[in-house]
Amino acid sequence: MTRLTRAFAMEHPIVLAPMDLVAGARLATAVTDAGGLGLIGGGYGDRDWLRREFAEAGDTRVGCGFITWSLADRPELLDIALEHGPAAVMLSFGDPMPFAARVHDAGVPLICQIHTLGQARRALEAGANVIVTQGGEAGGHGVGTRSTFTLVPDVADLVARTAPGTLVLAAGGVADGRGLAAALALGADGVLVGTRFWAAHEAIVSPRAHQRAIEADGDATIRTSVYDIIRRYPWRGVYTGRLLRNGFIDRWHGRESELTANLPHVAAEFRDAVDAEDFDVANVIVGEAVGQIRRVMPAGEIVRRMAGDAAEILGRFADASASLRV
Amino acid sequence: MTRLTRAFAMEHPIVLAPMDLVAGARLATAVTDAGGLGLIGGGYGDRDWLRREFAEAGDTRVGCGFITWSLADRPELLDIALEHGPAAVMLSFGDPMPFAARVHDAGVPLICQIHTLGQARRALEAGANVIVTQGGEAGGHGVGTRSTFTLVPDVADLVARTAPGTLVLAAGGVADGRGLAAALALGADGVLVGTRFWAAHEAIVSPRAHQRAIEADGDATIRTSVYDIIRRYPWRGVYTGRLLRNGFIDRWHGRESELTANLPHVAAEFRDAVDAEDFDVANVIVGEAVGQIRRVMPAGEIVRRMAGDAAEILGRFADASASLRV
Repeated sequence: MTRLTRAFAMEHPIVLAPMDLVAGARLATAVTDAGGLGLIGGGYGDRDWLRREFAEAGDTRVGCGFITWSLADRPELLDIALEHGPAAVMLSFGDPMPFAARVHDAGVPLICQIHTLGQARRALEAGANVIVTQGGEAGGHGVGTRSTFTLVPDVADLVARTAPGTLVLAAGGVADGRGLAAALALGADGVLVGTRFWAAHEAIVSPRAHQRAIEADGDATIRTSVYDIIRRYPWRGVYTGRLLRNGFIDRWHGRESELTANLPHVAAEFRDAVDAEDFDVANVIVGEAVGQIRRVMPAGEIVRRMAGDAAEILGRFADASASLRV
Repeated sequence: MTRLTRAFAMEHPIVLAPMDLVAGARLATAVTDAGGLGLIGGGYGDRDWLRREFAEAGDTRVGCGFITWSLADRPELLDIALEHGPAAVMLSFGDPMPFAARVHDAGVPLICQIHTLGQARRALEAGANVIVTQGGEAGGHGVGTRSTFTLVPDVADLVARTAPGTLVLAAGGVADGRGLAAALALGADGVLVGTRFWAAHEAIVSPRAHQRAIEADGDATIRTSVYDIIRRYPWRGVYTGRLLRNGFIDRWHGRESELTANLPHVAAEFRDAVDAEDFDVANVIVGEAVGQIRRVMPAGEIVRRMAGDAAEILGRFADASASLRV
């Protein structure tokens, strides 16, 4: 159907975002089984977790995604992934160059996530087979200066001019058939979906967090660094994370120096809240598309509905487009 | 073709953003003559300018847009617009409620621009006939917390549930046929286009500013308040403006208190730069879609290409969508 589905022998041009600790084997295999492509969330990097999830995925074809700056500290994680013959390796949030050769040498497709046109140029230099153009509407980390609606056509044009064999996935804000149809119209070959799959039964997410997301509308998220400060993660300056606003963010966003000064105390409060599943303090990592999520569904149903609805929407314009022609 | 073209008897679902001082009679009538709908930019409000532009538009059907907080200081501008039997009146950046009744009583369609779902609810209370959902990728002022890709479906759902007769226009990032096709797929009835028409021959824009925009890519814009501080405009806290980065913004963005302290001096520097068309200091107001603009074109050609390309893109999926169906 699209260049993506042909290249990866998928039925639907829908890829699971490798959300850290949320996208395990259960979610990734459910997406693949439904005709999409599942990526396990290698994230900040836990060797045992990664081994276990790949083992659980068994013969089902899944890939894996890493946070590049974190992978630099634990390069052996890439070996673990490559040993399992992944469908693809995805690198996000940092320079892919140091890892590209090992992925290519293993004969594994390299997916690079980018947030600006400048990063897209760098990903092409690294020989990316697929570029994920992530707009700032996405949940979790990103640069936040560009949005899906303009970044997809910008990157599609760059690729067409300089590396026409490279595939482009739209990420950020894609949560239903409308989003898939729009992404294809903007020039993407498919979509990478986070938040909608975060709200799947197979996602490793607290039911209480799911409930808060279902009750939220699209205005309810914000980009902030407060949870990175709390968790002492070394995210570089340009990266912030989008998540659901709560009392904790309202208390500390904009008061980051004060937060840093109170760190041991507030970090303990945060850890307790995570244990207690108290999401007035703990983080709920979802994007702007959260407003379109009204119930938790099986991942397979999400894939099939998204593809079916996109087909219906695009089909609807088939006749109308004749009259649009000039 | 869409509910918008039927409601406004237009050929193409493309509306000109009423850009202050950029969208005069020449640009507005060119858009209407090509089958779209032109809106004159009432902006900060100049009585003589508005009278002259409406007079120049003559019998060509055009509407007019206002900055609501500025209109509150000069309410007579709305009378001037209504005297000319405008195709529509558009209100942006503030509560439309105080003006809605006068527009409705005149039998003129009311267009309200919104930036968040919360503002959309308020616009529906004011009886908006058309809601413009402006994502933060747009050039010029906006709230910047929501993006086109998620705000359009959110507002389309809100309208479908609560006021199904209301039309929805996507604004922010729409600069070519891909953007129009994507906006329709996301659930919009049409698009409101700024930056692409800013780069039309008929726009009141310095050729030097046009040249800088053509050379810029999509990463080259930024949201900032520095020009509002310089011009002493009373924009409320939530509003910032997106424009092309230049040396002036690099110098002052993030140093707003220092800028305020140096105001008389720097404001004089700014005024001189505007007169000299020195766009290292003067402002070039364009959105993220600037990367898709490679030449200045007649407005009519922009309308026809956008509509034609959108039809081609949507038609392309007519066959493919059959195989997408599940």
